[in-house]
Amino acid sequence: MKGFKFNGISAGIKSDNILDLGIIFSEKPAVMAALFTKNKIIAAPVILGKKKLKNRICQAILVNSGNANCCTGDQGLKDAMDSAEMVAKILRIDVDNVMVSSTGVIGQRLPMERIRKGIPRLIDDLETGDIDNFARSILTTDTTIKKVEKKCDVNDHVYTIVGIAKGSGMIKPDMATMLAYILTDAHVPHSVLQQSLQRSCDKSFNRISIDGDTSTNDTVICMANGMSRAIIEDHKDIARFNENLDHVLFGLSEKIVRDGEGATKLAKIVVKGAESSDDAFMAAQAIADSSLVKTALFGEDPNWGRIVAAAGRSGAALEMEKIDLLFDDVYILDRGSWCGQDAEALAHKVLKKSEYKIVIDFNLGDFDDYYLFCDFSMEYVKINADYRS
Amino acid sequence: MKGFKFNGISAGIKSDNILDLGIIFSEKPAVMAALFTKNKIIAAPVILGKKKLKNRICQAILVNSGNANCCTGDQGLKDAMDSAEMVAKILRIDVDNVMVSSTGVIGQRLPMERIRKGIPRLIDDLETGDIDNFARSILTTDTTIKKVEKKCDVNDHVYTIVGIAKGSGMIKPDMATMLAYILTDAHVPHSVLQQSLQRSCDKSFNRISIDGDTSTNDTVICMANGMSRAIIEDHKDIARFNENLDHVLFGLSEKIVRDGEGATKLAKIVVKGAESSDDAFMAAQAIADSSLVKTALFGEDPNWGRIVAAAGRSGAALEMEKIDLLFDDVYILDRGSWCGQDAEALAHKVLKKSEYKIVIDFNLGDFDDYYLFCDFSMEYVKINADYRS
Repeated sequence: MKGFKFNGISAGIKSDNILDLGIIFSEKPAVMAALFTKNKIIAAPVILGKKKLKNRICQAILVNSGNANCCTGDQGLKDAMDSAEMVAKILRIDVDNVMVSSTGVIGQRLPMERIRKGIPRLIDDLETGDIDNFARSILTTDTTIKKVEKKCDVNDHVYTIVGIAKGSGMIKPDMATMLAYILTDAHVPHSVLQQSLQRSCDKSFNRISIDGDTSTNDTVICMANGMSRAIIEDHKDIARFNENLDHVLFGLSEKIVRDGEGATKLAKIVVKGAESSDDAFMAAQAIADSSLVKTALFGEDPNWGRIVAAAGRSGAALEMEKIDLLFDDVYILDRGSWCGQDAEALAHKVLKKSEYKIVIDFNLGDFDDYYLFCDFSMEYVKINADYRS
Repeated sequence: MKGFKFNGISAGIKSDNILDLGIIFSEKPAVMAALFTKNKIIAAPVILGKKKLKNRICQAILVNSGNANCCTGDQGLKDAMDSAEMVAKILRIDVDNVMVSSTGVIGQRLPMERIRKGIPRLIDDLETGDIDNFARSILTTDTTIKKVEKKCDVNDHVYTIVGIAKGSGMIKPDMATMLAYILTDAHVPHSVLQQSLQRSCDKSFNRISIDGDTSTNDTVICMANGMSRAIIEDHKDIARFNENLDHVLFGLSEKIVRDGEGATKLAKIVVKGAESSDDAFMAAQAIADSSLVKTALFGEDPNWGRIVAAAGRSGAALEMEKIDLLFDDVYILDRGSWCGQDAEALAHKVLKKSEYKIVIDFNLGDFDDYYLFCDFSMEYVKINADYRS
């Protein structure tokens, strides 16, 4: 991918020399699209980011982990602006084109002295820095870096889309509950980029659930620097671009759920035959968010009663005697009737796998939807009970 | 309390001679009020109960634990009716006046042979049976019986209200997520009783959360047999009756949350100063349901950022710079500003207690609300991963 540079270092925000400060830099100013959390409590970098989005241009993104810079008042906003300014000065670019993101504990001031010392070092090493260091520097409780790359072409011109994300807990998107950076060297007009990003997020990041909580810092930023010769403009090319973007965002979504705090299973709930698209979405979300469903999956128990009960409280129209329920290809409910002990034993085998699909068909209408989610383990509780200590 | 008899036996629905079949009998037919789950997947006894409620009269309630008789189709409905008929025949009362309730695993047929053998034994011993045996026979994952009694008087006539409940998981009421039986020997007209029950449930059972799931079997039945000389009719007496009913239902609600699956803490979230009553309710519910808040409480961590973030995603109007947040009397946020390490240390002490209050004041309007909830422990996950095995 042309024209993007990355780096990630340990600035001492976290202990033990863990990477905690990262940067993305584009040699040329890039067209920017972005989406932010819908939580009403928003972190300082999100407040700032929403303002900067009006420029539609971005050249650098500074990200720190270990501290969310949220609920930090005017001081927090000043700290975010000061960080952006320092980056702009050293890189000799317009401060309006510098975005900042933070992720970590809420309510503590950024350790600005460490960040001020870290930024020059971060930028000095930009030539030798690499994308994996950046991807590592933005992690919190994540256990792995999350990166997806897709080579594409348009009219014989090759371009690349790269996505990097972090997210492991506080994941129930209303937008996208995490940080994600989507970069491409294609040339894409702003209006197309913003629409494509929104569309692709709705299908991917907005359909994953780890714990039903929505973060204050969620940010997805997309940069298109146009440094390849690929130009995305006409209808057909946009459609192809969208497909490629979907590929990257779906890939990141799956990586996030797979790395869910304490997760041992990756499950996809597919709702079929709902009376409306709202019904399909509500039912999928209620099932994916249910603590009782999630703990049953952890126990590898095909407890279909809990799945049906979660659908039943979701608000979606349904009739018990019409419901089909499958674990992968194993029918456990056929038009509302339990398929017996043999089916239950087969379903139990499916749940022993690390990855499977659960399909619930209401057989009422033509609307489908889905959600990716994970199980709920004792490890999740442990991680989140001890998070700040 | 005059005219009520109780019993509970082991009918072999559960293993190990655990009590699993119970009965409440009133010597005279009693005025009945009732409320049922709003889940669209409803158990056979709830389908039957809704029909029977039209009589407005109840004389006996048969309850089994260990099996929910839910998602059991026409056979399940027939089993519920057969059980009621058997009770009516032996007691020589009208079958229309017999209610049945079930609680336990979803999707398995009731073991009717055991129930048919159990019912005569249950009724034979009614003279020597006691209320604690009944209260014990309706439990599932509960660790203690839940019973509250209140002696009251009206115009110098004494009457009693007794409440018995079960509920420990699948608790997020939309109505009341559990079984509860409220009995009184006062004379109360049906219209008053139904209204009073609804009102009191809204304030108690509808404001508790253990895990955010709503059951398919939730039932609250209230019987007033009028066998004392207390007559509840005029405005002032109804108001007093409602207060007494509140006392019983609040008491049961608290016992349910305290006995929440794996719970180690009893917390009350109080939302103050909201712009509307809906806002106050939504914020209280979002905080009480948040897995991240609940795990922080388990970890005894005054992680106020998660509380504020849950309020922020609830849909309620709020402004960070106006929010006060207290753990008992300890201010941790004062008009959006963090009160510092000393406050944090004091708050940590509060969270070490087994019972406390969390107050969040939006300082925007005049509307308050509250929710009782518990923490989320590793034990909760363990109980629910292993529930059916």
